Amino acid sequence: MNQPHFITFEGIDGSGKSTQARMAAEHLRARGRKVILTREPGGSAGAEEIRQLLLTGDTDRWSAETEILLFTAARRDHLEKTIQPALADGQIVICDRFADSTRVYQGSTRGDLRAMVDRLHSLMIGREPDLTFIIDMDPATALARGLARKSGEDRFEDFGLGFQETLRHGFLALAHAQTDRCVLIDGNRTQDQIASEIAAHL
Amino acid sequence: MNQPHFITFEGIDGSGKSTQARMAAEHLRARGRKVILTREPGGSAGAEEIRQLLLTGDTDRWSAETEILLFTAARRDHLEKTIQPALADGQIVICDRFADSTRVYQGSTRGDLRAMVDRLHSLMIGREPDLTFIIDMDPATALARGLARKSGEDRFEDFGLGFQETLRHGFLALAHAQTDRCVLIDGNRTQDQIASEIAAHL
Repeated sequence: MNQPHFITFEGIDGSGKSTQARMAAEHLRARGRKVILTREPGGSAGAEEIRQLLLTGDTDRWSAETEILLFTAARRDHLEKTIQPALADGQIVICDRFADSTRVYQGSTRGDLRAMVDRLHSLMIGREPDLTFIIDMDPATALARGLARKSGEDRFEDFGLGFQETLRHGFLALAHAQTDRCVLIDGNRTQDQIASEIAAHL
Repeated sequence: MNQPHFITFEGIDGSGKSTQARMAAEHLRARGRKVILTREPGGSAGAEEIRQLLLTGDTDRWSAETEILLFTAARRDHLEKTIQPALADGQIVICDRFADSTRVYQGSTRGDLRAMVDRLHSLMIGREPDLTFIIDMDPATALARGLARKSGEDRFEDFGLGFQETLRHGFLALAHAQTDRCVLIDGNRTQDQIASEIAAHL
């Protein structure tokens, strides 16, 4: 398999995906590759401003539809200003969350939104990652981690354990549906064990 | 014709549409109707925050595609939080700019964006006004008015006279294409003359 250039990490809050994204970047840099590590929502100056609108305030501040539009606007800016220029420069882009998060989070909030998210993605984004690691783990453990590092940006974590379990099943379904680019990783192990498995895929 | 309930005013910057929207609201209120007067971008708390992202900063801050997504997010919030509740309450909604502005402004920036704007509108907004007044006027006069009241929110006015002429033709084309809801108004007259013609339509 050729070196994938656009690599994303997905999973529920507290699954360890941000740590694993950072460790994967370090692994590739240690092998002499130019890597940029980025994240969503955010990842470019404009997208970070939209992120502030999305991640603060009351949980019912935006409707699900408005939220999807704002996530897509932030993603379009991130793609144009950060991801595409780095790929054009031959760099590897590692991204902590991308379109799959919108599919799973919004699709889990209300089932009928999933088709809307997919149509909006086709119309305004188009690009999929070359490789996606989906870190699967026990929602109770993941939720406890998420609450332990409360940062004020906790709109989604406010939904609690039942919602985390729904999200987990959403990510599992995605991993099984898109096997061409998705690799399911068991996150119920030490960081180093998980990082070694991911490094083997890279 | 039944009383239209969702009425919009469109036209280039400086065409007098905001003044006419206000005068139409006063006319209907004087006849005992409950009227709310609103505007885009903005018109609800969330949409006003998105408006700030759109109308300040450098002209190349957002790509045309990101801008379209942000306008659509603001419109969805405005529709849900302000327009639909007022219509459900039996009020008349008068709106200074709506989806036609996005069609004409973004479609005039780059021709291929018009189809994108239309598809996004169908997917995420759906609703069209019952009645739209398109105020047509000489772009040189309109531009001079716009520059005279410079407010800092001048991203679009920065484009100058050539762009205003392109926009004017965009609005004229729209008026001719959608005669079921659009009424073309000659804006090169006194405010009272124009207001009388509009009142006759109401």
